[in-house]
Amino acid sequence: MGSTTGPGTARTRDGRAGRPTLAVVGATGAVGGVILDLLSTRRNVYGEIRLVSSPGSAGRRLSVRGEPAEVVALAPEVFDGAAIAMFVVPDEVSAAWAPVAAARGAVVADDSNAFRMAPDVPLVVPEVNPDRVRDRPRGIVASPGCTTLAMIVALGALHRRYGLRELVVSSYQAASGAGQDGIDTLYAQMEKVGGDRALGNRAGDVRGAVGELGPFPAPLAMNVVPWAGSPAEGGWSSEELKIRDEVRKVLGAPDLRVSATCVRVPVVKAHSLSVHAVFRERVEQREAQAILAGSPGVVLCDNPELHEFPTPADVVGTDPTWAGRVRRSLDDPRALDLFLCGDNLRKGAALNTVQVAELIAAELTP
Amino acid sequence: MGSTTGPGTARTRDGRAGRPTLAVVGATGAVGGVILDLLSTRRNVYGEIRLVSSPGSAGRRLSVRGEPAEVVALAPEVFDGAAIAMFVVPDEVSAAWAPVAAARGAVVADDSNAFRMAPDVPLVVPEVNPDRVRDRPRGIVASPGCTTLAMIVALGALHRRYGLRELVVSSYQAASGAGQDGIDTLYAQMEKVGGDRALGNRAGDVRGAVGELGPFPAPLAMNVVPWAGSPAEGGWSSEELKIRDEVRKVLGAPDLRVSATCVRVPVVKAHSLSVHAVFRERVEQREAQAILAGSPGVVLCDNPELHEFPTPADVVGTDPTWAGRVRRSLDDPRALDLFLCGDNLRKGAALNTVQVAELIAAELTP
Repeated sequence: MGSTTGPGTARTRDGRAGRPTLAVVGATGAVGGVILDLLSTRRNVYGEIRLVSSPGSAGRRLSVRGEPAEVVALAPEVFDGAAIAMFVVPDEVSAAWAPVAAARGAVVADDSNAFRMAPDVPLVVPEVNPDRVRDRPRGIVASPGCTTLAMIVALGALHRRYGLRELVVSSYQAASGAGQDGIDTLYAQMEKVGGDRALGNRAGDVRGAVGELGPFPAPLAMNVVPWAGSPAEGGWSSEELKIRDEVRKVLGAPDLRVSATCVRVPVVKAHSLSVHAVFRERVEQREAQAILAGSPGVVLCDNPELHEFPTPADVVGTDPTWAGRVRRSLDDPRALDLFLCGDNLRKGAALNTVQVAELIAAELTP
Repeated sequence: MGSTTGPGTARTRDGRAGRPTLAVVGATGAVGGVILDLLSTRRNVYGEIRLVSSPGSAGRRLSVRGEPAEVVALAPEVFDGAAIAMFVVPDEVSAAWAPVAAARGAVVADDSNAFRMAPDVPLVVPEVNPDRVRDRPRGIVASPGCTTLAMIVALGALHRRYGLRELVVSSYQAASGAGQDGIDTLYAQMEKVGGDRALGNRAGDVRGAVGELGPFPAPLAMNVVPWAGSPAEGGWSSEELKIRDEVRKVLGAPDLRVSATCVRVPVVKAHSLSVHAVFRERVEQREAQAILAGSPGVVLCDNPELHEFPTPADVVGTDPTWAGRVRRSLDDPRALDLFLCGDNLRKGAALNTVQVAELIAAELTP
């Protein structure tokens, strides 16, 4: 693209010649807020950055890279001249508008579920399958869901060494996976139950005390709820099947055996996962720990004798996947058990989308 | 033993001739309280009931079967004439005193971990292996731990039909598994965090707010803690290895593959388990559901479309194992995934001990 301005580039007053213009669709949402934070703190690879929202939030003034920016309403013209468009919006908005952005010449980095399983849309996790970002016939690159993203970087590293054959996953998912309504509901329920010592002893007493259930099918405060998503075939939930589909696609392992059970826990942010992974090769505990410790995007936190293991309260707000409790099965030398935590709004949503957009930017920038 | 009084029998004022005398050691503790409740509500099979505690609690007046009873201090003589002794006390107390009771002629139903893996002590779950109660060369019968008891009745029923080969278990364990200190700590932490919307967003903010950690190695309110027990070989925790040992012994399946991950959740009472069970035979979802629904001690609660699945808040205080989320693996026709909940102080401790004692009583009563 050289140094002249043109489609997908911008020349701004601080001399960002040749750098791609970025549109952030959904800038005023919860994930959008994290995106602006990341854009302001990571290496600056963009020219102009346009903040886009639904008409209802347009006109708001936000800040990105230390500069004020006014939010504009979503319309086809916002993509004119944009080389990259990040979408952090509900599925139906992405489904409707990502093709519009692509038709106007922007490469879309989409965080939603709208295109993840489309065969002509790559599903990209930069630490795992960065090369797939180049093969995007529709001009759209998708990111996996937050539960898959809480484990896929760690699993990808182990898969490269040992060859993953089977996964059994049980989740400990935060309320924020159900959006702002989930967060608000958990806080409201926590306020109602407080430290009330009369609760938690008789069936239903918590249910009678928490008030509104919000987006959850049962009380979340002082409880765990073995359900997320909508009903699917065979008693599975949509969230459980998504994990299976997404892990297979990102790892390029269509025959991988996956059984996931999704359970919501009374944690505000950061998903945790208990993972039983069976490999083709024999595994060694120390080597597996070293692989995880040496993998970009993963932090090993694994010394139980010193009370070192990841917990959601200790990793929330951070970028990496935290790995601990790494154990080789006592009954199968090819199986590892481990416990993983990751912030579902950062790597689980905003960060992966930002990383995908950076891969695209690197490709577009001379 | 006929109808005359003698060792292990008693004739009381309400005519319980021939029925065995029972000693309840640990009557003033948390599990002891549930024992007294169960003794007062289940079929009355005992003659005299003696309530026994440490010297510090002796002299307290409690109620059992609607009658007042004074607690006596633990001493060898309390077992004289007792046919059965329930022990619901810490491991070291059982280790020291159960042999004393047995030497005085009482058959011991022990709730502790002291004898569970002893080869000459049967480990009994009445719904699963009742016949093993008769083979007790030391006069001691042990009960499994509360986490094993949250699943073993359901697993035993499925094992009889399909032949269990492998188990992958992730737990969602209540604070009460760590005793009264665990319960008190969780309530105190819940009171401190309340519904504070400033918490849960930055690493460590919950840790800074909850106050004392009590028996837990990390904050439990607004968090999950992937650790229970003490460090064992290979990064495993003692609780995780106990589950493996106990399930194998109760099912009589010494080669069963078991990988367990124990995680504490901010729930006061009732343990939950996400179970992936691989069998020798092909399984069918509907048939597995029918087996569970038809098994004594198990309640099937499995209709996610109507928001019917077990949660700890909805089953606490009840006796059965609650089973839901029954699904056949999409990738292995011999594997089932399911979610189980059970009150860790009832079936998980008091109830199983009471049931074991009832088996012994039935054998001793003419």
